[in-house]
Amino acid sequence: MKKLISQATIDRLPLYFRTLRLMEGEELQIISSDELGRRLDITPEQIRKDLATFGQFGRKGIGYDVHDLRNNIGNILGLHNKWRLAIVGVGHLGGALANYGNFASLGFSVVALLDINKKIIGKRINGIKIENSAVMKEIIAENSVDIGVITVPASEAQIVAENLIKAGVKGLWNFAPIKLSVPTNFPLVNEDLSVGLSALSYHMSKN
Amino acid sequence: MKKLISQATIDRLPLYFRTLRLMEGEELQIISSDELGRRLDITPEQIRKDLATFGQFGRKGIGYDVHDLRNNIGNILGLHNKWRLAIVGVGHLGGALANYGNFASLGFSVVALLDINKKIIGKRINGIKIENSAVMKEIIAENSVDIGVITVPASEAQIVAENLIKAGVKGLWNFAPIKLSVPTNFPLVNEDLSVGLSALSYHMSKN
Repeated sequence: MKKLISQATIDRLPLYFRTLRLMEGEELQIISSDELGRRLDITPEQIRKDLATFGQFGRKGIGYDVHDLRNNIGNILGLHNKWRLAIVGVGHLGGALANYGNFASLGFSVVALLDINKKIIGKRINGIKIENSAVMKEIIAENSVDIGVITVPASEAQIVAENLIKAGVKGLWNFAPIKLSVPTNFPLVNEDLSVGLSALSYHMSKN
Repeated sequence: MKKLISQATIDRLPLYFRTLRLMEGEELQIISSDELGRRLDITPEQIRKDLATFGQFGRKGIGYDVHDLRNNIGNILGLHNKWRLAIVGVGHLGGALANYGNFASLGFSVVALLDINKKIIGKRINGIKIENSAVMKEIIAENSVDIGVITVPASEAQIVAENLIKAGVKGLWNFAPIKLSVPTNFPLVNEDLSVGLSALSYHMSKN
């Protein structure tokens, strides 16, 4: 069993992962928590604490092995699974996500697009054909989809979530502004773009 | 001077705010931390701790006044400022944000769209005309823009950020996957959609 890691630490791990990947590209072999902190604007103390959570200890005065650390963080995040995504609801946001290149750099790939709008069914984004949501079960199975991405209007999100779970996805990433009911412990992450914007508002008001 | 509130608490405040607004719509006057917790899937203890941070104490056995609490949270987040947004880079993601209705419910409004692509300059999204980024300074001033939203490719993000700051915005919301250099203490929030997806991957791997 894995040790429980705090949500805040989990949220920083992909930032570490991406920076370490860039460093590998720069052929850096050893990185200090000071340098990693400078690049990410996180204190070296916080970085050492985060990494110690999963048993990674840099060598004092030397630092961390870039390749090992990147590998370990990737494993903790489960990125080696190369998860396959289906986006349900190919409106503006769904279309933006289908085109969002950052996921690929973390090992995720969008393999299916689904919508109920006949006007867009059959069109392609990045080579992937938009299929009819009516055949969701078949598309999910054929494409070995792991993660269902919900970008339909709030009023349709619950039924889409249920259909995705029935179709066999192992996790849901929900962008609809609604609390979904899913089986206990079913992996679900709600994305709410207003949260970041509200944090910005908070910082602007303090000035 | 305002008391410093932790980032995790700040991130939960918009969720409280939105739920309380819904409750006002339902004409609820008093809400317990239990009920608020049930709706948000957050423990009542966490809610009481968060609200105590800024001096809001429910009455034992009764609860919180819905209207007062919503007002106070809105004030802490600075939502009464009715911030005005300009989106720079009206590709898929910029277009999605221009159409994202959730911001309006928190008092934000998109008032300007800017791009360098001549094929889309002059088109309208939700009634707002896409203007040429070359006249950014004028558009920002004319529309009293507070927040610059950066949805251009990473290679252009730094120069766009500098131009937005020169044009007079008070804060930046950055979607480009790059660390921007801005003046010390300039309000900046980086949005990284991969963070939520990686957290989902983590939870799926634990199962």
